[in-house]
Amino acid sequence: MVRQSLKPDKAPIDGSGLDISLGNRCSRTALAWARKTYQARSGRLGVPLLRSDSLFANLMDFGPFQLAMTTDGIGTKAEVAERTGIFNTLGFDLVAMVADDLASTGVEPVNLTNVLDVSHLDHPTVDQLMRGLHDAALQAGISVVGGEIAELGSRVGGWGPGMHFNWSATVIGLVPPDHAAITGESITPGDHVVALRSDGFRSNGFSLARRILRAQLGDTWHDQPFSESSTWGQELLTPSRLYTPLLNTLIRRDQPIHGVVHVTGGGMADNLSRTLAATALGAVLDQLHPPHPAMLELQAMGGISEQQAYLLWNMGNGMLLVVPSSSSARLCQLARQLGYDALVAGRVVRHPRITIHSKGRQPGRLVYSPTSGW
Amino acid sequence: MVRQSLKPDKAPIDGSGLDISLGNRCSRTALAWARKTYQARSGRLGVPLLRSDSLFANLMDFGPFQLAMTTDGIGTKAEVAERTGIFNTLGFDLVAMVADDLASTGVEPVNLTNVLDVSHLDHPTVDQLMRGLHDAALQAGISVVGGEIAELGSRVGGWGPGMHFNWSATVIGLVPPDHAAITGESITPGDHVVALRSDGFRSNGFSLARRILRAQLGDTWHDQPFSESSTWGQELLTPSRLYTPLLNTLIRRDQPIHGVVHVTGGGMADNLSRTLAATALGAVLDQLHPPHPAMLELQAMGGISEQQAYLLWNMGNGMLLVVPSSSSARLCQLARQLGYDALVAGRVVRHPRITIHSKGRQPGRLVYSPTSGW
Repeated sequence: MVRQSLKPDKAPIDGSGLDISLGNRCSRTALAWARKTYQARSGRLGVPLLRSDSLFANLMDFGPFQLAMTTDGIGTKAEVAERTGIFNTLGFDLVAMVADDLASTGVEPVNLTNVLDVSHLDHPTVDQLMRGLHDAALQAGISVVGGEIAELGSRVGGWGPGMHFNWSATVIGLVPPDHAAITGESITPGDHVVALRSDGFRSNGFSLARRILRAQLGDTWHDQPFSESSTWGQELLTPSRLYTPLLNTLIRRDQPIHGVVHVTGGGMADNLSRTLAATALGAVLDQLHPPHPAMLELQAMGGISEQQAYLLWNMGNGMLLVVPSSSSARLCQLARQLGYDALVAGRVVRHPRITIHSKGRQPGRLVYSPTSGW
Repeated sequence: MVRQSLKPDKAPIDGSGLDISLGNRCSRTALAWARKTYQARSGRLGVPLLRSDSLFANLMDFGPFQLAMTTDGIGTKAEVAERTGIFNTLGFDLVAMVADDLASTGVEPVNLTNVLDVSHLDHPTVDQLMRGLHDAALQAGISVVGGEIAELGSRVGGWGPGMHFNWSATVIGLVPPDHAAITGESITPGDHVVALRSDGFRSNGFSLARRILRAQLGDTWHDQPFSESSTWGQELLTPSRLYTPLLNTLIRRDQPIHGVVHVTGGGMADNLSRTLAATALGAVLDQLHPPHPAMLELQAMGGISEQQAYLLWNMGNGMLLVVPSSSSARLCQLARQLGYDALVAGRVVRHPRITIHSKGRQPGRLVYSPTSGW
């Protein structure tokens, strides 16, 4: 997936077959047109605020409130549901993509609408999808206030004979009263980087994962055993953990947070570098959570380099919190009490370079420069 | 397109090949799950307000503000752009679908995000789409604050060898300070129904239109002449007129408006009946704008009944305003000054039945009952 926001250019092809530089060009064009519309709200409620070039969630000034709004979809993870016939967990992926993005800017997600594009309708499938959306929304403290189911026939493709679908959502939220948006501007050298464990692939990196599995295990790769108790399909479908409830709690309890990185498309280093951009600082991450076994196996099966793996997959770390070193222990403890696996994974350094001590198949030191990439 | 909101059941098949009763069932299920999430905001900012079963745009209580949020897409009109190679007008259709829906509840649309699902990226096409979105957003007074371009490969289908895409958007807005949402509750017998002319098909009824054209003119129907100066493709692509600027102005000038009907999927009678539901009143529409020539030709080519044509196409009337009879003349005058073709098309009556004096191929009297349909 390519966001309509500025990203540093990367290698032309990302290994999953997508042309990232073309994606970046399209995103920049979309953003350029969008920016020309900011004037439409000039001097009125809803005028876009600050840093729209580097933050996913755009903040808008509504007088007594700052609101934010973001939009995203589950991408090709939908195919894994079509293959496994399990539809009641994708709601967690959908809510995670949008709500966790908002929450990572210090915004409390509040309301959500969704668009379900379908080839044709299947009531039980729709029921399961919406049940999952309901479950995830409740967990994230969000009300679902609208939606659209669009029957688009052959404009929507997918796997197998069932209902094919693409699913996206938009969430709005607000900066809690007496709090400020989290912009990364207060990050200082010596800050700790706390990593929150992911439960699996979330909604990123599926193009590459599916390409490897198809090449190695054939078209019905989803039915092949991954472990004694699960198939590859079930493993890849692992629902996204929602970080929004944790962030809401940390902010409510006035835990100091200088920056938050939602590890999505573009990978940990790219996402972290954008959070660090405001201060031109760097980071060393030498104690990250290890990758999930499925990621290690896919890496081996596909001959995927450490660099590529950390570019396309979350490698076990779904979110990073940049916090004062004095409060990181307390924050990790709080997170664990709330059921999140959290550890101090590294620290902020003066040199604007990100060093990752990778824990994939060939553990090593990956160095990322915000100006030139890996 | 099927909204995730309650609609009276209609005939099982709508003539365009879509199963409307299945669509309604799926919508009801989605809405039922969504409603169970309202509790997530109970006692907090963003709690959903009133009439979410019958209004498209859900209102949320944000303390000093009432905000609203709605989501929709351009459906299969995208195919007409793929066929004609004209991509810079669909933005008007996209903004019209979401902004005019919000505006019809008395809400001023403020910010918009969009999701563009593509088979693969084509930069010039993305550029033209986003240029159109920019043009439409400026005209509607909206800032585009976010977006997502998702490369989904074969999950997105379309016509021809170019970039295929499905496009949706979400818009948020607010009830202007010192104003109330327009709910239809103040509608009284004798109120006038002012009809605003459409410029063409907007984004509804394309499945049927395309089916007729393919059957009559073959697969390259879009290249066939419609008039001396235009093809069928160009005619069907006619961009949607935006009613939002007019509604914003009318509300700002304190013109009394009791109800607004955005004529979209489900047709004029169905949409009007939902606006009248709060009062259990009816309406007689005996002076509507005539259908566009393309609608009349398609009606003849496809042997489409008056009833079906008024169910699936806007038949020349894109929006209805229910206003006090004493102010309708002034309102029409104001609308015309602002470039909108407006006329008093009918009046509200006591009997909860909608009578349309149709102006299609076989002009006649169509009677619609909110409990039993046509």
